[in-house]
Amino acid sequence: MPQFDHHIFVCENLRDPDDPRGCCALKGGEEIRLRFKEEIKKRGLKGKVRANKAGCLDQCAQGAAIVVYPEGVWYGHVTVEDVTEIMDSHIIGGKPVERLTI
Amino acid sequence: MPQFDHHIFVCENLRDPDDPRGCCALKGGEEIRLRFKEEIKKRGLKGKVRANKAGCLDQCAQGAAIVVYPEGVWYGHVTVEDVTEIMDSHIIGGKPVERLTI
Repeated sequence: MPQFDHHIFVCENLRDPDDPRGCCALKGGEEIRLRFKEEIKKRGLKGKVRANKAGCLDQCAQGAAIVVYPEGVWYGHVTVEDVTEIMDSHIIGGKPVERLTI
Repeated sequence: MPQFDHHIFVCENLRDPDDPRGCCALKGGEEIRLRFKEEIKKRGLKGKVRANKAGCLDQCAQGAAIVVYPEGVWYGHVTVEDVTEIMDSHIIGGKPVERLTI
């Protein structure tokens, strides 16, 4: 069975720009996922850590939203600038980034 | 923090039909996810169990592929006909469907 130490799901759900709920696609979802992929590769973590696109995680008001399994840690209002800190503190260091958890 | 008893990610990655790797979108990924959503609703599990679309889970040869967190159980060659059994045995009963695990 495949097993990742950390499996990062980044919401990339797209809604109409006029939709009051907002959506993670318009809050940088794809860019965040691509940055995670870069950081994973750069740190030699391919096969141990995976970043995946996800459909709506139902945290629209808190987008861009992310969930990391198996630990089930949720992040909201994530920007591409936060990726390095999540990688360093949480993925490498085992300490979730409290200021971003939801 | 949101917390699902079971968070089901269904690969719906789409590749060109000629791509030798195959892809889960062409093996019923979306239909499988929609069936999970129906079953979750029917059984009153909304809020406790969630089925989400996922990008490529890197199990292309075993599509349609699914991973269920936080337990990290992976399924391959899933069809829409398998959804009820996964719901009954695994999601409700706590016993993964061995014949489909990868």
